[in-house]
Amino acid sequence: MASPNRIPEIRKDTVNNRWVIFSPARSRRPSDFKSKSNLINPTSQPECPFCIGHEHECAPEIFRVPASGPDWRIRVIQNLYPALSRDLESSGELAGRPGGGSVALSGFGFHDVVIESPVHAVHLPDLDPVKIGDVFMAYKKRIEQLQCHDSIQYVQIFKNHGASAGASMSHSHSQMIALPVVPPTVSTRLDSMKEYFGQTGKCSLCEIRFDALLIDESIHFISISPFAATFPFEIWIIPRYHSSHFHELDGVKAIDLGRLLKLTLRKMNVQLNSPPFNFMIQSPPLQVSPTQLPYTHWFLQIVPQLSVVGGFEMGTGCYINPVFPEDAAKLLREVSIS
Amino acid sequence: MASPNRIPEIRKDTVNNRWVIFSPARSRRPSDFKSKSNLINPTSQPECPFCIGHEHECAPEIFRVPASGPDWRIRVIQNLYPALSRDLESSGELAGRPGGGSVALSGFGFHDVVIESPVHAVHLPDLDPVKIGDVFMAYKKRIEQLQCHDSIQYVQIFKNHGASAGASMSHSHSQMIALPVVPPTVSTRLDSMKEYFGQTGKCSLCEIRFDALLIDESIHFISISPFAATFPFEIWIIPRYHSSHFHELDGVKAIDLGRLLKLTLRKMNVQLNSPPFNFMIQSPPLQVSPTQLPYTHWFLQIVPQLSVVGGFEMGTGCYINPVFPEDAAKLLREVSIS
Ligand SMILES: Nc1ncnc2c1ncn2[C@@H]1O[C@H](COP(=O)(O)OP(=O)(O)O[C@H]2O[C@H](CO)[C@@H](O)[C@H](O)[C@H]2O)[C@@H](O)[C@H]1O
Ligand SMILES: Nc1ncnc2c1ncn2[C@@H]1O[C@H](COP(=O)(O)OP(=O)(O)O[C@H]2O[C@H](CO)[C@@H](O)[C@H](O)[C@H]2O)[C@@H](O)[C@H]1O
Repeated sequence: MASPNRIPEIRKDTVNNRWVIFSPARSRRPSDFKSKSNLINPTSQPECPFCIGHEHECAPEIFRVPASGPDWRIRVIQNLYPALSRDLESSGELAGRPGGGSVALSGFGFHDVVIESPVHAVHLPDLDPVKIGDVFMAYKKRIEQLQCHDSIQYVQIFKNHGASAGASMSHSHSQMIALPVVPPTVSTRLDSMKEYFGQTGKCSLCEIRFDALLIDESIHFISISPFAATFPFEIWIIPRYHSSHFHELDGVKAIDLGRLLKLTLRKMNVQLNSPPFNFMIQSPPLQVSPTQLPYTHWFLQIVPQLSVVGGFEMGTGCYINPVFPEDAAKLLREVSIS
Repeated sequence: MASPNRIPEIRKDTVNNRWVIFSPARSRRPSDFKSKSNLINPTSQPECPFCIGHEHECAPEIFRVPASGPDWRIRVIQNLYPALSRDLESSGELAGRPGGGSVALSGFGFHDVVIESPVHAVHLPDLDPVKIGDVFMAYKKRIEQLQCHDSIQYVQIFKNHGASAGASMSHSHSQMIALPVVPPTVSTRLDSMKEYFGQTGKCSLCEIRFDALLIDESIHFISISPFAATFPFEIWIIPRYHSSHFHELDGVKAIDLGRLLKLTLRKMNVQLNSPPFNFMIQSPPLQVSPTQLPYTHWFLQIVPQLSVVGGFEMGTGCYINPVFPEDAAKLLREVSIS
């Protein structure tokens, strides 16, 4: 439909004041789900390029864990249908655009896939905490590589699980997109955490603890239903210690986080009948000034897909959530996991 | 799940700096679709409360068109499962909330349904332009009633068509939600149109015309693919004349808009195989100052549902659009309608 030879672009919507990525290559990506909305997770898939033994069907590998040998546990690879192109560094603003205040940048960036397990039927909560910790440490390592590119400003780590959470591949994986701009959600968040800090001298995420919203806690993390959750049963896992960037995580804390994430996903599966879900690591832009460090604090946002977004949410950016967070927290706190 | 006796609340997410509506009543609303994702539009539905003859199964009527008699063409009714309550006027900010900068308002507002046709199988593009114009004039009349409430700041008009566009009812209808706050998308838009006006002395929507993006035009309106469309095949219908608020529309222009909307939806059905879709009327807050009038300009945003949102979009507020707007515009411009 769109010409396959067009390079991707990032454009600023000057009316809504936000950035949009245009990527012709994305329209050609395949799906291994029969229907975009059935959560069928095949236990084996002879055709799956993410399975062990099919490495040659994938886009190039960036690294694996362990670092060498055929028996990998995790692979970080290039996305075969990337939203952004890693070959456009320093091409900058595009000329010859229509007037009316429109701005377009070339679509430089990185789009990687993290294959979380060599086996098709093994999903994140099936792994032990140490192996989930390895996935977090793989994210961290990749961020450290990406931040060597001066023009990369932000890395979004996210996971789509299940067709109605957007997944086109059922094999357990997550993705990392590195952008040359700071996206709107991130800068808005930075601004509002700054405002809170200005008023109180405190980090708003260090302050967030409130008993009725607490689900679980581990040595270094808490899981909560946020007070104004956008989505029903949305969960945040937050470091108890002040930490601005996700990639400050160390091996010990990664395992602790793995344990709490595993518990949280298992509880969600029991309470909500194994829903499709997304998770996003919400961290500030890679470069923030030292004065911003006291009020930036990363967290992991988990969103089970329980409803469809309608015109109201699209029009206003304001969501309707039918479940009070304190009720969601209570239910999730009390789920018993055998 | 959430206690049915709780009153709805609007809360501010002070981390993301946005408002969220909490409405326990919403969790009880019914669906007449077998599956949330199958676009089955039954031609007749003996159980449908929106069909003529079933008025007693609906929440109270606000008005009908024509104004009296059993043979209505349009009914504006209360939503039986409203997101906000019309009985909470002037209750204001709620006390006794947890600390950490959290703010909660009582959930005052109006949530109405506009039944666009008495017959189940008749959808908007099946109506003639005059009757579509009547629907727009019904919106206008209802906005004029709602703006008598001093605490109502914004009215979002939207339509969900098809299950994967969020619809739970297949009978042709749209909705109006009146809010006591200005939602984030609306204030962001106001700010950025102001900035453009400050730099150029012009309204950015009066300036938007660009031949490669044009789809169609009528006497008073143009339809375009916006330069930085968030979604594939997103279409905006914009008044050619400068008009700040939707409810400035008059009867003649409403019919002209009806003609262009009918053409646009029919083209979309042919080109994109009758997709589920949303439309939203994007207008500024009800009260804007006279200095804001030169740069606020309403439009109708149409979004066919062709893809599922994933973790990247949720995390960043930045969307990936696989189709260049100039390609979408060309295809839609060239569709021939018999
Ligand atoms: N052989 C191979 N080698 C390497 N990579 C391969 C590959 N085969 C497939 N891939 C890639 O693997 C990825 C799998 O990703 P997901 O299943 O999480 O969702 P996807 O990115 O398709 O889209 C979802 O997530 C994005 C981002 O949130 C949304 O834009 C979109 O609408 C939603 O459906 C795809 O991006 C695909 O390009
Ligand atoms: N007898 C009756 N009398 C009066 N009203 C009746 C009624 N029976 C049903 N209704 C109402 O009719 C409305 C029909 O609306 P839609 O089909 O457009 O989507 P809905 O609002 O359910 O949710 C979609 O849109 C909202 C807003 O965008 C999203 O929050 C949500 O996730 C998405 O599924 C519902 O709001 C329902 O409450």
